[in-house]
Amino acid sequence: MDEHDILTRFLRPLAADFTPARGLLDDAAVVRSREALAISTDTLVEGVHFPSGTLSAEQVARRALRVNLSDLAASGAAPLCYLLSLQLPPATDAAWMAAFAAGLRHDQEQFGLHLAGGDTVRTPGPLAVSLTVIGRVGRGEALPRAAAKTGDALLVTGTIGDAHIGRLQLEGRLPADAGAGKLVERFLLPTPRLAVGRKLAALAHAAIDVSDGLTADVRNLCVAAGKGARIRLAEVPLSAGARSAMSRGQVTLEALATGGDDYELLFSVPRQAVREAIDTAAGSAVTMTVIGEVTDGEEVTILAPDGGAPRTARGGYVHAWAKPAG
Amino acid sequence: MDEHDILTRFLRPLAADFTPARGLLDDAAVVRSREALAISTDTLVEGVHFPSGTLSAEQVARRALRVNLSDLAASGAAPLCYLLSLQLPPATDAAWMAAFAAGLRHDQEQFGLHLAGGDTVRTPGPLAVSLTVIGRVGRGEALPRAAAKTGDALLVTGTIGDAHIGRLQLEGRLPADAGAGKLVERFLLPTPRLAVGRKLAALAHAAIDVSDGLTADVRNLCVAAGKGARIRLAEVPLSAGARSAMSRGQVTLEALATGGDDYELLFSVPRQAVREAIDTAAGSAVTMTVIGEVTDGEEVTILAPDGGAPRTARGGYVHAWAKPAG
Repeated sequence: MDEHDILTRFLRPLAADFTPARGLLDDAAVVRSREALAISTDTLVEGVHFPSGTLSAEQVARRALRVNLSDLAASGAAPLCYLLSLQLPPATDAAWMAAFAAGLRHDQEQFGLHLAGGDTVRTPGPLAVSLTVIGRVGRGEALPRAAAKTGDALLVTGTIGDAHIGRLQLEGRLPADAGAGKLVERFLLPTPRLAVGRKLAALAHAAIDVSDGLTADVRNLCVAAGKGARIRLAEVPLSAGARSAMSRGQVTLEALATGGDDYELLFSVPRQAVREAIDTAAGSAVTMTVIGEVTDGEEVTILAPDGGAPRTARGGYVHAWAKPAG
Repeated sequence: MDEHDILTRFLRPLAADFTPARGLLDDAAVVRSREALAISTDTLVEGVHFPSGTLSAEQVARRALRVNLSDLAASGAAPLCYLLSLQLPPATDAAWMAAFAAGLRHDQEQFGLHLAGGDTVRTPGPLAVSLTVIGRVGRGEALPRAAAKTGDALLVTGTIGDAHIGRLQLEGRLPADAGAGKLVERFLLPTPRLAVGRKLAALAHAAIDVSDGLTADVRNLCVAAGKGARIRLAEVPLSAGARSAMSRGQVTLEALATGGDDYELLFSVPRQAVREAIDTAAGSAVTMTVIGEVTDGEEVTILAPDGGAPRTARGGYVHAWAKPAG
């Protein structure tokens, strides 16, 4: 199998009938849009973003697409197309590629976007999948990250911490007991909150997708605007599975709030629009929960459920390199 | 040094004053354009696309940017911005990042584009740099790859094979004698033929950038249109350095024509426009040489300089994986 086989047999069918892809025959896709385009890129590396050898080819494909779509969701954009940069280890075979392409096809159809271009290379390192997703912003503006205002309510979609538990189960660090299947799924296949992102683009001041961990991303959202936040851990929305894991002492609330990989959306919403935001989300069958508010200053304060002393947000997943920044 | 340091200290300054980048504060860049956008992605992996340990951080950055810009050149697009996906090994330090950013800044200024977004992750594998470049197509259409017509002349810019010799010298497989410096440079820092690509967008039927090797890319260009080609090796343009290496028996003409990494442009031009194409290139201080013509059929025939038997084009760089496509 060489790069031409991969292009011809597995990738070109994913670009069929999508004019800007030009049949993947060209050096570049050509995209025309009267609307502004939101463009974002995210890479998954095996052994870094997911444990080595745990994900099927189909799961890698779908996770890569969904993680990228989550960035479009946070911008309030509607998916249009994506470019795929694949770094494949030498042992990659046609069966793996076929399953990978099937995963892409499944989620392309589910989320309504097309393959528009890409690049496939050999690597002596781990499998890496780098996507660039392109979405239409639509009327009005893209939802920014850096525009939270003091007094805004902080709202988060869905439930937090399931993906963290799912990852621990996948790694064998927690028992995969009742309900585990669904939590592993929450890690493997996050749901990009595209509909809610688009609907709230006009209502919210700012948004971010929760990938590094809830408290870390509250900090990312607020510091970007020169603001701080106050978060009430007791109000962080948890699934029944997460509550059960907590009650059995398998995981702490703090771990759930810092674990990451949730790919829920965190919004900064003016007080008077909170009701409308929650109702709008409900219309898309997504729960939306107020977990705190934006404050002056640049500190994120975490209020413990037991009324204990407030703490400052730390933690969250950060890629780091060996040497200090000199 | 963590990903926030890299973003704040090294990458954000490269996006300054470019509105669509939104200060790299957001999950997505937001690009507005009345013109169509050409979008392309290409990845460099250390040890695959260049020998491990041979390129400085600045050279890696500039080579990654130029290789991607070459795809825009082949589409006749003008550079606008790019997204950068960095996979960095654990030992990466701030000095390396500073030099890498300096390389990007140098070539951003030289080619007139801006950083608009990206992603930085740790990898246990080799350094990998994946770029997505975005260009404006301008009035008229993007120059396609797949539209060569029977009877078109095939023209190539600059000289062919220098980068191949340069790579052999860099790898220590050829002596780095007189003139070697410049040939190594031709491998390290290809020159994307942006001006010629834009100017010939209305004149040529089709174009491709020569990255896999001249004969392989002639085949890529022609087969995409269901055509073949006839190439006269004697007419392939060579630099004085390449002629000298050939005359000393260090390299064959065939190796130069199949070596790759040239990043020259190959055009398919209607016969009556050949003169104008050559004159137009001359106006951009780039030589342009007719090396053959497009034929019916899907075979690329190579005519040897000595009048020997014609051969069919083979070779060129192709990424391949262990198992046959079952």
